Amino acid sequence: MTDSYRLSEIAAHLGGRVLGDAGVRISQIATLEKAQPDQISFLTNSKYRAQLASTQAGAVILGEADADATGLPRIISDNAYAYFARVSALLNPLPEAKPGIHPGAFIGAGAAIDATASIAATAVIGEGARIGAYSVVGAGCCIGANVVIGSHARLYPRVVIYHGCVIGDNLIAHSGAVIGSDGFGFAMDAGRWIKIQQIGRVVIGNDVEIGANTTIDRGALDDTVIEDGVKLDNQIQVAHNVRIGAHTAIAGCVGIAGSTTIGRYCRIGGSAGILGHLQIADHVEIAAFTLIGKSIREAGSYAAIFPFSRSEDWRKNTVHLRHLDELVQRVKTLEQELKAINLKN
Amino acid sequence: MTDSYRLSEIAAHLGGRVLGDAGVRISQIATLEKAQPDQISFLTNSKYRAQLASTQAGAVILGEADADATGLPRIISDNAYAYFARVSALLNPLPEAKPGIHPGAFIGAGAAIDATASIAATAVIGEGARIGAYSVVGAGCCIGANVVIGSHARLYPRVVIYHGCVIGDNLIAHSGAVIGSDGFGFAMDAGRWIKIQQIGRVVIGNDVEIGANTTIDRGALDDTVIEDGVKLDNQIQVAHNVRIGAHTAIAGCVGIAGSTTIGRYCRIGGSAGILGHLQIADHVEIAAFTLIGKSIREAGSYAAIFPFSRSEDWRKNTVHLRHLDELVQRVKTLEQELKAINLKN
Amino acid sequence: MTDSYRLSEIAAHLGGRVLGDAGVRISQIATLEKAQPDQISFLTNSKYRAQLASTQAGAVILGEADADATGLPRIISDNAYAYFARVSALLNPLPEAKPGIHPGAFIGAGAAIDATASIAATAVIGEGARIGAYSVVGAGCCIGANVVIGSHARLYPRVVIYHGCVIGDNLIAHSGAVIGSDGFGFAMDAGRWIKIQQIGRVVIGNDVEIGANTTIDRGALDDTVIEDGVKLDNQIQVAHNVRIGAHTAIAGCVGIAGSTTIGRYCRIGGSAGILGHLQIADHVEIAAFTLIGKSIREAGSYAAIFPFSRSEDWRKNTVHLRHLDELVQRVKTLEQELKAINLKN
Repeated sequence: MTDSYRLSEIAAHLGGRVLGDAGVRISQIATLEKAQPDQISFLTNSKYRAQLASTQAGAVILGEADADATGLPRIISDNAYAYFARVSALLNPLPEAKPGIHPGAFIGAGAAIDATASIAATAVIGEGARIGAYSVVGAGCCIGANVVIGSHARLYPRVVIYHGCVIGDNLIAHSGAVIGSDGFGFAMDAGRWIKIQQIGRVVIGNDVEIGANTTIDRGALDDTVIEDGVKLDNQIQVAHNVRIGAHTAIAGCVGIAGSTTIGRYCRIGGSAGILGHLQIADHVEIAAFTLIGKSIREAGSYAAIFPFSRSEDWRKNTVHLRHLDELVQRVKTLEQELKAINLKN
Repeated sequence: MTDSYRLSEIAAHLGGRVLGDAGVRISQIATLEKAQPDQISFLTNSKYRAQLASTQAGAVILGEADADATGLPRIISDNAYAYFARVSALLNPLPEAKPGIHPGAFIGAGAAIDATASIAATAVIGEGARIGAYSVVGAGCCIGANVVIGSHARLYPRVVIYHGCVIGDNLIAHSGAVIGSDGFGFAMDAGRWIKIQQIGRVVIGNDVEIGANTTIDRGALDDTVIEDGVKLDNQIQVAHNVRIGAHTAIAGCVGIAGSTTIGRYCRIGGSAGILGHLQIADHVEIAAFTLIGKSIREAGSYAAIFPFSRSEDWRKNTVHLRHLDELVQRVKTLEQELKAINLKN
Repeated sequence: MTDSYRLSEIAAHLGGRVLGDAGVRISQIATLEKAQPDQISFLTNSKYRAQLASTQAGAVILGEADADATGLPRIISDNAYAYFARVSALLNPLPEAKPGIHPGAFIGAGAAIDATASIAATAVIGEGARIGAYSVVGAGCCIGANVVIGSHARLYPRVVIYHGCVIGDNLIAHSGAVIGSDGFGFAMDAGRWIKIQQIGRVVIGNDVEIGANTTIDRGALDDTVIEDGVKLDNQIQVAHNVRIGAHTAIAGCVGIAGSTTIGRYCRIGGSAGILGHLQIADHVEIAAFTLIGKSIREAGSYAAIFPFSRSEDWRKNTVHLRHLDELVQRVKTLEQELKAINLKN
């Protein structure tokens, strides 16, 4: 049901250079393998180059280097992958939410909801909260007292934002995300844990996306901060007083412990972890499943993955890890003995 | 408050061979250790065999090999564990949900809800969604526009299914599960991430169970697919365009990265991970905490667990891992020197 | 908007010894670095001692050893960290919830809700459930049939508790927590998984805190048990029939497999895991990212972290792990050959 565009119209919207028949009509985007004649495809990974010859696509998006790789109608772009993203957005606009407050929503006293915003049935907005222009709050969302949400936010069903948190423009938050829950702070006293009130907030910049069931705890005293353009996948845990630098992207299931600061433009792989009170520089890449236990001062790529193998091989090799120090001592002894022999000879 | 059955009635329902008093009345199932005279127990792990002598159970379920291991009234089955499961289901039927739409639910225009289905208070059903016969949608569930759910589904409170997803019969989805959230896809352009619209769906077969707070992302272009009989535990993350083969069972906290295909009848241990764009064969077992970083072409068991020890031992041994290559070179040097000596002598 | 207290009033409430001007007015607590003259700060980590000289705080909390470390008005306590926690609670009382049942809540037949309890809009309380005095049930919470919750509970929005679970006093449960979902139990029969009904409950003691999106499964036959004073961070997965001993604290993203028993006063680091059917003694500390695969009988600290490094170093060293057994054999051969040479010489 998407509208269709002539190739020339796409280029008029998004730039790029058209080669071949600019009049072909495009209504959707698809992979080279599955695209139909009314669909546009793209080549952004040379591994799929062979599919260019067999694709049924009506047009393709190519990088400058591949401009002549096919005779199909095509758009040439400096950054074919970003162009693909833009074409997909053009062809698949989000359904517009009806402005206004559904009668099945509950709005607290003093809440200020922009007239262009949309609040779904069963959403609950706390006292004094502010929801900006064109923002969409899905069913079952709970927005705490005095929360501030900027414009053009899209909260999918069942997002919770605790009281007092402050969020910029263009937030996308997926279902089950929890923003502003208490950080994990207790003091042990006479055999019992005493709770440390978590009085900081979560402060989120512009253009942030937060995945399904991701949790971001409020600060203990100061705030937890997510800077502009940060992208968080599903089921990430961000502890209290963490700061995540602008445009950093974090894959699913990552855990970040309290008071750690992550730089800008970092990329963190799935199920990785970062211990607390550390500093991670800008432009750091961390591999999946890697625990970072010390601060990282230099940009670069870091890893700590234990290599998998068949279980019987794994068992045979891994048993020695508990005796590695002993093995090193044995090698040292051998070296000394051999040195003695060599001296003698 | 369960009904009671004579042992003979259980066998009439579920098969199996009765030995001893077939008239004993059974109202519940319990472990050998805790069972009372009106309860049936079972032996499926030889480790508990000694408890057969002391159990207070009124009857027991045994495998063929153990048919004479006790004089208690008993049912003998080829698959005692499966028989136990069936007896438990017989004695503990799920509470029936009242058919119909609770007046506190919100139903979108054009939604088609079977007259035998049950929709709880505060559930929100999107426009054009279809809910099959005898399906139960719990409180706070949000079913997106045009979602299709088959018959006999049981959605516990607060399940979210995004627009357009398609689900077979007999789904069980636990609270907090999110099906169809956006995959994690962005293109970097001039220092900013551009979102790639996620226009695929999640397509789920029959007889699938999805654990609490598990997330399954919709596909970027094509669909994410969960085949028949797949069992997913809690807090699993399934990224976009993953395919999970029929009857595969996955334990809690596992993360599966984008576009990976997992075979049929696989078993994946807790907190394991699988990187993206991989192929995992049928009948593969992956140990807990194991990251799979390459495709697995052959059935079998695979592992990558770092062995734990007391912290002081761990520190002493583990420090050498950062110098393992050097150690291997030292051994190589020793071998060469020794060879030279042996040649000389 | 917190009330303010003179230093003498704080000591009157909470004990401790006041040195310096006891009349200084305090309205909030803050770090040494950020505190203002109407705020109290604290020194509980010697790393921040230098900040004592420069802080703008109006007063500080100090341990006995630091009693003379500043001339600022101060309270001296045996346990400065616990004192800090108590001052923070005094200065930041939780907002009081209005007693009563919001008209937008849904209450099942026969539910018994104390007159002092507060039930928010869109909360759903099952038949026969009991909610104790001064307990607060947030928006979107779903409390199953016959659940029992003690007094002074605070359930943040969107907590789910399945039928029949029993919870003591002073529970704090954060948004998205799921208590009592089905354990993961199936029997394989003729190529299909048969579900094992999960008929146990979750039983939770007093003074327990449960983090956002944490899941605790009900028992298969017997109960899953969380003892008094247990503190669970976000996104923890507790499988069926686990027992967690009193006052144990578990950090985020930990997974605990079925039927494992954890002792009292344990501390478990983030993203750690414990396999099923194990026994963990009291006072055990487990490092982050560590998988425990065998029972631990003795108190102490345990770890299994693979050390991270730059990716190129990691690759160079890690490749040898798949040949570790071979390396050990090579060292053994060297030792034998050298012994032969030494015997000869």
